[in-house]
Amino acid sequence: MMFRATVLTLYPEMFPGALGLSLAGRALEAGSWSLDAVQIRDFATDRHRTVDDTPAGGGAGMVLRADILAKAIDHASPEGDGRPRLLMSPRGKPLNQERVRELAAGPGAVILCGRFEGVDQRLIESRGLEEVSIGDFILSGGEPAALVLLDAVVRLLPGVMGNQVSGDEESFENGLLEHPHYTRPQLFEDMPIPEILTSGNHAKIAAWRHERALELTAERRPDLIAKRQPRQK
Amino acid sequence: MMFRATVLTLYPEMFPGALGLSLAGRALEAGSWSLDAVQIRDFATDRHRTVDDTPAGGGAGMVLRADILAKAIDHASPEGDGRPRLLMSPRGKPLNQERVRELAAGPGAVILCGRFEGVDQRLIESRGLEEVSIGDFILSGGEPAALVLLDAVVRLLPGVMGNQVSGDEESFENGLLEHPHYTRPQLFEDMPIPEILTSGNHAKIAAWRHERALELTAERRPDLIAKRQPRQK
Repeated sequence: MMFRATVLTLYPEMFPGALGLSLAGRALEAGSWSLDAVQIRDFATDRHRTVDDTPAGGGAGMVLRADILAKAIDHASPEGDGRPRLLMSPRGKPLNQERVRELAAGPGAVILCGRFEGVDQRLIESRGLEEVSIGDFILSGGEPAALVLLDAVVRLLPGVMGNQVSGDEESFENGLLEHPHYTRPQLFEDMPIPEILTSGNHAKIAAWRHERALELTAERRPDLIAKRQPRQK
Repeated sequence: MMFRATVLTLYPEMFPGALGLSLAGRALEAGSWSLDAVQIRDFATDRHRTVDDTPAGGGAGMVLRADILAKAIDHASPEGDGRPRLLMSPRGKPLNQERVRELAAGPGAVILCGRFEGVDQRLIESRGLEEVSIGDFILSGGEPAALVLLDAVVRLLPGVMGNQVSGDEESFENGLLEHPHYTRPQLFEDMPIPEILTSGNHAKIAAWRHERALELTAERRPDLIAKRQPRQK
């Protein structure tokens, strides 16, 4: 079963973008996944191809219309499609690696990219959209967020990275930030690689890395340490 | 003073990508900001243009070499440059709108995109890199994250969005997720726009929106409500 991504956007020319290169691009070429960018304006009904209108109740900006978006979604994802329907939005649940793994194990995703002030709430409810946020910041639209989500998912698809993945995943699964990395040259501007890493003592190296990961996480992300407590008991 | 972005990457062809279109693209064309993508391999010293090596102490993957990256950074950002040097990395401090605003108010940014297992720690320390994360998920490289960061920053640059910005900003500044939006048609598949929004009573509309924002935030992001408490006292 191939992972099928359909992106609904006012800027289909933003895709595949970065996803057409490197890992994701090679996987796209190899047919490990597919990407279809659908122009929302194609579902407008007037000759100006209008997709938005002013917010009910007043306020700045424009809101994407429920009726136009519904047509686009129903076309891209007819009943029985089975793929989750996502809306990239700072109001959504923060994306994490667990959700990325779930998506990668599924049949694909239909991704609506918001623009302007947002999307009519009735569309979100009637079409069961899952709002997904990639962080507490505001973008010009959902497109860069969709690129990020798909990049994270595609690298986990079968055959895309091979063994490379397992190592990365583990480091996130234990709920800690990754320990620092070093490589040759042995001496860089008078700074040597920490001696223990060149000792050949694998148990000590593992313990050292774990301690550094703990330290770093405690310093930068106490929230992750707090989440981790229950598992340790 | 123009905002100058320099991105250090193994995939310069990923830029400007989505940033060459829409808001950011028009601003780039208008000279409101500049974007320079530097190929890290141009600073390699062997004929294979090697930039990475195996991790000291063993383990999967490859690590970007401190000596090669130092040359690239020193070239792109010589002493006295004044622009912050960022490293996109899931180990970093989570990006938020406050940091986005700070960056947009500054002279620009030098952004190193990690790949593989990561970057030699000695490079991070010697060149004072600020590690920035866009979320608790793993990407194939820092490039999609850099696109997101720059998109968020560019829309705040003078003249890029005009008045549009102020509204969005406020909604994030009060520490809540945004209330739901509605627009015409008045009736969408038997669902009307909530009556209050068409009442013309602006005080009641503002109160209703605030309540919806509070509800939504409490449901989806109790962490934001918790952060908000001190301000309310």
